[in-house]
Amino acid sequence: MNMAEQTEDAAAVAAEQDLLDRMRHSAAHIMAEAIVSMLPGTKLGIGPAIEDGFYYDFDLPRPLKEEDLAAIEDRMRQIIAADLPFVQFSVDKATARRLFANQPYKLEIIDELPDETVSLYQQGEFIDLCRGPHVKSTGNVGPIKLLNIAGAYWRGDEHRPMLQRIYGTAFPSQDRLEAHLHKLAEAARRDHRRLGKELDLFSIHEEAGPGLVFWHPKGAQIRTVIEDFWREEHYRAGYEIVYTPHIGKADLWQTSGHLDFFRENMYSPMDIEGQAYYIKPMNCPFHFLMYKSQLRSYRDLPLRWAELGTVYRYERSGVLHGLLRVRGFTQDDAHIICRPDQMEEEILRVLDLTLFMLRSFGFYEYEAYLATRPEKAVGANEDWEKAMSALRSALERRGIDYRVDEGGGAFYGPKIDLKIKDALGRAWQCTTIQFDFNEPERFDMSYIGEDGREHRPYMIHRALLGSLERFFGVLIEHYAGAFPVWLAPVQAVVIPIADRHLDYALQVRDELRGKGIRATVDSRAERMNLKIRDAQVQKVPYMLVVGDKEANSNSVAVRLRSGENLGPLPLERFEAMAREDIATKKAALCQ
Amino acid sequence: MNMAEQTEDAAAVAAEQDLLDRMRHSAAHIMAEAIVSMLPGTKLGIGPAIEDGFYYDFDLPRPLKEEDLAAIEDRMRQIIAADLPFVQFSVDKATARRLFANQPYKLEIIDELPDETVSLYQQGEFIDLCRGPHVKSTGNVGPIKLLNIAGAYWRGDEHRPMLQRIYGTAFPSQDRLEAHLHKLAEAARRDHRRLGKELDLFSIHEEAGPGLVFWHPKGAQIRTVIEDFWREEHYRAGYEIVYTPHIGKADLWQTSGHLDFFRENMYSPMDIEGQAYYIKPMNCPFHFLMYKSQLRSYRDLPLRWAELGTVYRYERSGVLHGLLRVRGFTQDDAHIICRPDQMEEEILRVLDLTLFMLRSFGFYEYEAYLATRPEKAVGANEDWEKAMSALRSALERRGIDYRVDEGGGAFYGPKIDLKIKDALGRAWQCTTIQFDFNEPERFDMSYIGEDGREHRPYMIHRALLGSLERFFGVLIEHYAGAFPVWLAPVQAVVIPIADRHLDYALQVRDELRGKGIRATVDSRAERMNLKIRDAQVQKVPYMLVVGDKEANSNSVAVRLRSGENLGPLPLERFEAMAREDIATKKAALCQ
Repeated sequence: MNMAEQTEDAAAVAAEQDLLDRMRHSAAHIMAEAIVSMLPGTKLGIGPAIEDGFYYDFDLPRPLKEEDLAAIEDRMRQIIAADLPFVQFSVDKATARRLFANQPYKLEIIDELPDETVSLYQQGEFIDLCRGPHVKSTGNVGPIKLLNIAGAYWRGDEHRPMLQRIYGTAFPSQDRLEAHLHKLAEAARRDHRRLGKELDLFSIHEEAGPGLVFWHPKGAQIRTVIEDFWREEHYRAGYEIVYTPHIGKADLWQTSGHLDFFRENMYSPMDIEGQAYYIKPMNCPFHFLMYKSQLRSYRDLPLRWAELGTVYRYERSGVLHGLLRVRGFTQDDAHIICRPDQMEEEILRVLDLTLFMLRSFGFYEYEAYLATRPEKAVGANEDWEKAMSALRSALERRGIDYRVDEGGGAFYGPKIDLKIKDALGRAWQCTTIQFDFNEPERFDMSYIGEDGREHRPYMIHRALLGSLERFFGVLIEHYAGAFPVWLAPVQAVVIPIADRHLDYALQVRDELRGKGIRATVDSRAERMNLKIRDAQVQKVPYMLVVGDKEANSNSVAVRLRSGENLGPLPLERFEAMAREDIATKKAALCQ
Repeated sequence: MNMAEQTEDAAAVAAEQDLLDRMRHSAAHIMAEAIVSMLPGTKLGIGPAIEDGFYYDFDLPRPLKEEDLAAIEDRMRQIIAADLPFVQFSVDKATARRLFANQPYKLEIIDELPDETVSLYQQGEFIDLCRGPHVKSTGNVGPIKLLNIAGAYWRGDEHRPMLQRIYGTAFPSQDRLEAHLHKLAEAARRDHRRLGKELDLFSIHEEAGPGLVFWHPKGAQIRTVIEDFWREEHYRAGYEIVYTPHIGKADLWQTSGHLDFFRENMYSPMDIEGQAYYIKPMNCPFHFLMYKSQLRSYRDLPLRWAELGTVYRYERSGVLHGLLRVRGFTQDDAHIICRPDQMEEEILRVLDLTLFMLRSFGFYEYEAYLATRPEKAVGANEDWEKAMSALRSALERRGIDYRVDEGGGAFYGPKIDLKIKDALGRAWQCTTIQFDFNEPERFDMSYIGEDGREHRPYMIHRALLGSLERFFGVLIEHYAGAFPVWLAPVQAVVIPIADRHLDYALQVRDELRGKGIRATVDSRAERMNLKIRDAQVQKVPYMLVVGDKEANSNSVAVRLRSGENLGPLPLERFEAMAREDIATKKAALCQ
């Protein structure tokens, strides 16, 4: 995409978003009008448009139930059908206070407004405190749908009253609304928190602390497959793997600057023999100490040091969300320390490894961003230019469409960010490739050049999958828990038809395990159909039913989780098929 | 070994140790006499016997050098030859103070003695403050050797004067002394701290904190091989792998009891949103929360949950020692949760896995200890009996000699400890297999039995290698850095004779890498002999020299790190040989 196209495209997107925002903000007012008319005495909070919809907070005379939503929708549709204009007018604060005399939350807002003039919007008899903008009249609001009810503290403050928040959405057309509702239903079906519990993949425990992930055996099996693959491919790509501690002295974080520019994300210190130690929010400073543990020559570069390092960062408990936003996470981190003449080649290699890794996990679509120098930045202009040009050139040589995020780089260097698109088209922040002109200075890193003098190396931070926790959350939702065979924690379950087939079932299992296939036997005293249903719920790729016929012919009746029956196959044929699906990292057989 | 033999054996060991202690304590007095006569004005600290020798601390008129030790030894040998009796006598404190009027350190000790009577020992003209015991006369002290000089604060207090400490040893015979000195020289040659630096395996940085290990690329390569092997064998042995966080709320450590009985080993808390969090000193409580995350049935047991969990424990900085005593270490931890009827079988399986793992790493000799119930303990007598019997039976069924450590069990259950013996016959604490009757109660763990009622499971903690850091330290010393091929970070280095052979060298390297052999090329512009010497110093198992002849015949001239030349081998033959050495985990080719 060239610059002109990009600008045009961005303008169209902004106009569309503006229209949706007005429509949804108007729908929120319509919902407030409906509620006030249905439940007199209702006190109003606020009702903004949000991403994909709107909400309004109410202090209601009685708690709402999900069943109430249909009636509210009906009343809203009547108001929309009446096509009442949205009219803006202004009053002074005293008048506003009289108009909202019975609305304590509105009064609180009025008191805090900086201007003496207060903007109001009216449709029909309903007046709300509002700066707008809105659509012209209620008839301009497209098809609506109320989604759910949640509790929300007034102003997010747990010491203030708990209000009832109703979420809804509106679209310009019924088709678009339905597509969105379908997507919401799909997202709910794929919710990694629900699937994590159903498939027994992970848990988070209030007793241990929010945002801290426990990988259960099945989730951990997937993680070990991911890690093994990651290590193998990194070694193959010329990386070396390292391990560093999880804590470090305050001095180190002072040298690195994290105590200055990252402190609010760091945990409070521990005291050890009178010294303050911090749990690491990043692996970087440890890698730099290793770099400095010996004299480096231009011949030693590039160094590519990768670590699956678990870091801890403070996040408010309110923003934590399953595996997608956590407090402890394992970065698939690496630092590339290189000479200026190696930089472009290194960026290209990182990009190639990234695309290879992401495709291996079934992600073929990306949004790429190239973030440039912000106002406040460290490092020479010339270095920024060189780095930007290396990043741009790598993207272009690999034919990757990207957007320029002007001034969006970190203060220490420009970067490429990749978001991966999942099966529902949702984009997730994943890969980051960042130059750093700050840390090599702070740690006074150097190498001896061919000229016998000390030089400052270039340094690149990169994480391809980002965080294993987050990536796993995205994987679960992408595949709706039906992982490709190579990742599936249990790849095949052998189901004996009757007790007398148990021995053969165990023999099949052991044979498969010997070939590196993760197989189990369902030996419970239950009916075969129940066992098949359970395996289906657990999204096991292959169900191998064995009875007399199979035992006598050394075969297995293969059923896929898609429901498809492949019928009896010689055990060897099945093995070859499974091994092929594993080796090729074939995508999930069904969702 | 039966009980009577064990008791007899223990008595003989104690008598021998008592003799050595007397002799060495006497040697310390002789050294003090020699020094005082040679360096008038010397102030005496203390001079005890220690494991394998003795030392004495001196405040000297001049700093000693290593070269002084021979002269001191000569003077000591004269005193020994004179065969002066050690005579004990007692005086009151006032007399003692007059005798030691010029010895301020002795005066300090005299002041602190609880009794009014002070015990002294005299040989020749030399009198020391001492409770004994000593050998009869100086002639009873066997061959001596002074080893080294170190600084030591008076009473270990950095605010008191720094004294000079001379270490020495004495043995009943010249043969035994020489054997010991040889062992010391070997131990110095194998010191993992020295080799860790020479082979670039790991580092520890004061800037980050003492006792925190950085695994450099080569050490980390070995660690990944160890971890891969460990994971594979654990899965094969029916374990499941899990991952848990590194921090947890104070409440959790209160429930587990660690804040009561393990607090002095724990780091100080971090504050997160007003809650205290601790970095984990153990993985256990996290596994228990996972166990409790769902209802468990008797059919689900045994559960065998293993984790390579990095834990942090406070140790005084004074006792830290390379990789062998650290503050952060990765346990190869597992918890086995089982029914009472499964316990004996489970212990046997743990023992089998232990022996298999240790033998795979080249450790064939062990010291086994069975530790029984201490005075203060939790859990029913009956449970202790059953657990003891399961541990004993497992040891006996596997024909493992063991000693009973009466009352040496933890308060929460009996255990088996295994120490592995390294190439120098030194024993290192490694494996521990412990019952725990405490945590299942504290966490109220249960399973539904066949009878439909809740039962308390048995729980076993176990670590086979113990700590990866410590085990790696022992491995380095055991192999003196010449790791078996399967562990060696670089398995083969290809050495081109001249520049024109570089292409072929690279081709050989890539071919080997394709076969899973870790190969590099030494492409430096250096002479071949230097490259061979460097590979030798790096203890690379195979050096593959390639010149015209090799390039023309697709072969390599194989040199082993033992110095042995296998001559030219077709590349395929070498590959097969190397793959065989890797697959069989063949022990190191040379030390």
